[in-house]
Amino acid sequence: MTRTDRQLNLNIGINTTGYLFNAWRERSGTRHDIIDPEYYLRLARLAHRGRFDAVFLSDHPALITDPTTRPFHTLDPLILLTYLAAQVPDIGLVATLSSTYNSPYNFARRTQSLDITSGGRLIVNIVSSFNPNVAANFGADPLPPREVRYARAEEFLDVVKQLWLSWDPAREGEVPSDRFWDPSSAHTIDHRGEHFSVRGPLNVPVSPQGYPVIAQAGGSDRGLDFAARHGEIIYCNILSRPAGQAFRKKLTDRAARIGRDPSTILLVPGLVPIVAESREAALRRHEAVQGVANEDELLAQFAHENGIDPAGFDPDAPLDAERFRPDQNRILAVGFTQGLVDLLTHETLTARQAVRRSAGNHRLVLGTPEEVADQIIDLWADGTVDGYTIQPPTAPDDIEIFVEKVIPILQDRGVFRRDYAGDTLRQRYGLPYPVPAPEQAVKVPAE
Amino acid sequence: MTRTDRQLNLNIGINTTGYLFNAWRERSGTRHDIIDPEYYLRLARLAHRGRFDAVFLSDHPALITDPTTRPFHTLDPLILLTYLAAQVPDIGLVATLSSTYNSPYNFARRTQSLDITSGGRLIVNIVSSFNPNVAANFGADPLPPREVRYARAEEFLDVVKQLWLSWDPAREGEVPSDRFWDPSSAHTIDHRGEHFSVRGPLNVPVSPQGYPVIAQAGGSDRGLDFAARHGEIIYCNILSRPAGQAFRKKLTDRAARIGRDPSTILLVPGLVPIVAESREAALRRHEAVQGVANEDELLAQFAHENGIDPAGFDPDAPLDAERFRPDQNRILAVGFTQGLVDLLTHETLTARQAVRRSAGNHRLVLGTPEEVADQIIDLWADGTVDGYTIQPPTAPDDIEIFVEKVIPILQDRGVFRRDYAGDTLRQRYGLPYPVPAPEQAVKVPAE
Repeated sequence: MTRTDRQLNLNIGINTTGYLFNAWRERSGTRHDIIDPEYYLRLARLAHRGRFDAVFLSDHPALITDPTTRPFHTLDPLILLTYLAAQVPDIGLVATLSSTYNSPYNFARRTQSLDITSGGRLIVNIVSSFNPNVAANFGADPLPPREVRYARAEEFLDVVKQLWLSWDPAREGEVPSDRFWDPSSAHTIDHRGEHFSVRGPLNVPVSPQGYPVIAQAGGSDRGLDFAARHGEIIYCNILSRPAGQAFRKKLTDRAARIGRDPSTILLVPGLVPIVAESREAALRRHEAVQGVANEDELLAQFAHENGIDPAGFDPDAPLDAERFRPDQNRILAVGFTQGLVDLLTHETLTARQAVRRSAGNHRLVLGTPEEVADQIIDLWADGTVDGYTIQPPTAPDDIEIFVEKVIPILQDRGVFRRDYAGDTLRQRYGLPYPVPAPEQAVKVPAE
Repeated sequence: MTRTDRQLNLNIGINTTGYLFNAWRERSGTRHDIIDPEYYLRLARLAHRGRFDAVFLSDHPALITDPTTRPFHTLDPLILLTYLAAQVPDIGLVATLSSTYNSPYNFARRTQSLDITSGGRLIVNIVSSFNPNVAANFGADPLPPREVRYARAEEFLDVVKQLWLSWDPAREGEVPSDRFWDPSSAHTIDHRGEHFSVRGPLNVPVSPQGYPVIAQAGGSDRGLDFAARHGEIIYCNILSRPAGQAFRKKLTDRAARIGRDPSTILLVPGLVPIVAESREAALRRHEAVQGVANEDELLAQFAHENGIDPAGFDPDAPLDAERFRPDQNRILAVGFTQGLVDLLTHETLTARQAVRRSAGNHRLVLGTPEEVADQIIDLWADGTVDGYTIQPPTAPDDIEIFVEKVIPILQDRGVFRRDYAGDTLRQRYGLPYPVPAPEQAVKVPAE
C-alpha cells in the first residue's frame, strides 16, 4: 500500500452494554442482551455496515459482582467471535486472551482454528496482566512478580508462533498415489524453556494469513518491549498529538534496536466518541453517560476518582502531571492512568478542560458528527496514529449513531473505505505474512 | 416421553476423512478437505438432512505424523462446532475435550458459551486418557498413574458442574431501576480440593438447557464408575446383544448404588455401517475400506493386529476370548479391545465370522440398506442400546449413502424422527435439567 492509499483503521469494541461502566442507563435494550448471542450478531452486523476493520472484545475471566454497574465480560471471546465470523463476512475479530491461564498448545490450536474458519480474520490481543479476582479462579498460588509474568509471556508467544508455523501443507513434496499426505510438511518444535516444554507439531496447519495478527495493549516499559517485538496492532491510551508522537517514538526506537521495520506496527488507541446534534447536546450526553447530572458533578467525579480532596479542589487551576503519575499504591493499572499523565506532560490543562478530553481513560471526542470526524482525522492525518479502536459509551446506541452519522463523513472525506478489500486481515492492514525460521523449515519430523 | 414414543438416537462422527484409517482411498474429495471448514459444514448439513441427533468429533491434541494414514484430529472441536452451530440449526454437537489439559474455569466458560450460542445443543465428551504424544505437547512431566488421572477427572467435573450453575439470572430478585442487575444471582463456589482451587462464580450464566449434556467413553472399571455418576450419553464398544446387556447391567447397578435413575443414561455405542446394493457388494466394500483386496487379506490383517502367529492361524477355528483380553503389554487402550472380548465371551465365533462383526473396534453392520436398518433396529428394539454413534468408514461418501438410503427406511419403520422437536438437546433426549444443590442456591456472593 502506497502512502497515498493510506486509509484510517477503525476497530470497534462490542463488550456487553458498551464501554463506559455508568452508561448502561442511557442505552436501549434489556439486561438479557449481554448474554444473548443475537445481540452481538446485531452489533457485528452494524460494524460490518460501518466497514470497520474489526470488532474488539476485551476480556477478564472473572465475574465482577459489583451491583452498581453491569458485567462487562461474559461469553468466551473465541467462542463468541467464531459464532460471529460464521455469519458476518469480511470483518476482523480481536480476541483478548490470557497468556497466563492458557497452555501454548491449546492457545495456538484454538486461535489458528478460528483464523482458518474465519478465512484469516483473527487478531489475538495477548494479555499477561494479573488480577487477584482472576487468579482466584485458576488456583491458590500467589501472584508471581511482574518480571516473571512478562518473561513467561515472552516465552509463551515464542512457543505459540513456532507452533502456528509448524505444519504447512505448502511444504508437501510429491505425494505418491497410495499416500494421503506428506507428513514432512509438519515438524516438531522441541521447545524446552524456563516455563514451557512443548514438542509439537501443532495439529492445525498455517492459516490463510499464516497466523493471527498480534495485538498488544501493555503500557509499561516491559509492555512496550513486548509490543516492539511482537505487536502489530497496538491498543493504547493516547489523548493528544504530542503524547501520541512521544509514544510512537518510544515504540519505533525499540523496534529499530531489534531490527524490526516500525511501519509494521499500527497504533489504534482507544477513542470514546460522543456524537450529538450540537456540541452542547454532546456535553450533556457526556455527563449522562458518565452517570452524572451536570459539569459540577463530572468535576467532582474526576476529583474523587483521582483521590483529590474536594475541599481544596479548583477545577479552573492548571493540573500537575506528577500528581497523576501511577505508583504501586494506586488502584488502577499502569497503562490506564499513563494516558492522563502523558496528556498533562505535554499540555497545560485545568480539570474542567481535562474531563472533556478523556473517558474511561481513552481519548474522548465529542460534538457534532462533523466535529467528531474532524478530531478523528486530525491525529491520523499526520501519522500520529494509524486509526482508532472506537469504544462506544453505550451499545448498541452509540455504535448505531457512529455508523449512521460519522462513518459517511469519513468516507466522503476519502479517508475511510466504502467497501472491504483484501482476502485476509494481514492484506487489509498491509502487514507482512509470517515466514518460518530457516532452521524450522528443514527440520525432520519426529515420526 | 412415554415408552411408545421411544425413538432411536443417532449421532454421526464427522472427523476428517471418516472413521476407518485405511478408508481414505475409497472416498471422494481432496486432502485439503480435512482443514476446510466448508467441508465440515457440508457434513453437518448432510447430518441435519438425515435428522441425526448430533455430530460427533473425537479428539486428540497432537498431530499423528504417520505417512500411511491421514490426520484424524485437526481443527479444535469447540471452534469447529461453534462455526457449524452458527450455520446449521437443530443438530446437537458432541465435543471431545480433555479434563487433563484444561483448567476447570476456562473449560466451564468455553463450553457454557457454546451451549448458549447454540441454544442448548452441546454435549461434552470428557476424556482423561493420557497418551505420551499428547503429554509431550503439554509439558515435560511424566504421565501420572491411572488412579490419579481418574481422581483428578472426578474433581475436575465436580468443579465444572458447580461453575456451570454458579450464575443463574433466574435467581435475580426485584432489580431497582437504578441498578442493571442483581449480583446475588451469582455465587462463589469456593472450591478447594486435592487438584483444584477455584473461587468462581463463572462469568457465563446457565445455558438454555442448564449446562451441556455429559458424554462419557471410558471402558475401564474407573471409567464405568465415572459414567454411572456423570454420564448421560455413553459412547462405548458393544458388538452383540448379550455383550450390550451385560454392559448395561454393570452401568445400571453402579448408578443404582449411588441413587441415580439409570433411565437417564443413554447407550449410543459406535457403529460402522457399510451399505451397498447387495450383501456381496457390501463385503467387497468392507475389504476395500479396510485397505485390503479380499477376505484372505482381511483375515491376515486381523491376525496381525491381534498378534496372532500366521503360521498356526486357522480362520475357521473358534476364537478364545481370553486370548484377546487387554493387558498392560498391549498397545491398544482398554476400552477398544474390550468390545471384542465381550463379543467372544457371549458368542462362539471363528476369525472369519469375527472380522465381519467389527471395524475399528466398533460394531460393523453391512449389507443392503434394509439389512443395515434391520440390524440397527435389532439391538435398539429391546432396549439393549438407545441408539448409535454412526462412524462412517469414509466421509462424505458413507454419510451420504446412510442419509439417502438407510435413514428413510428407519423413518418408514416409525423408529426415527422425520423432523426435529424440542428446544434443547436435554428435551430431545428426555434428560433431566440440572438443578443447583440447595446449599449453593442460598450462598451469599463474595462482593
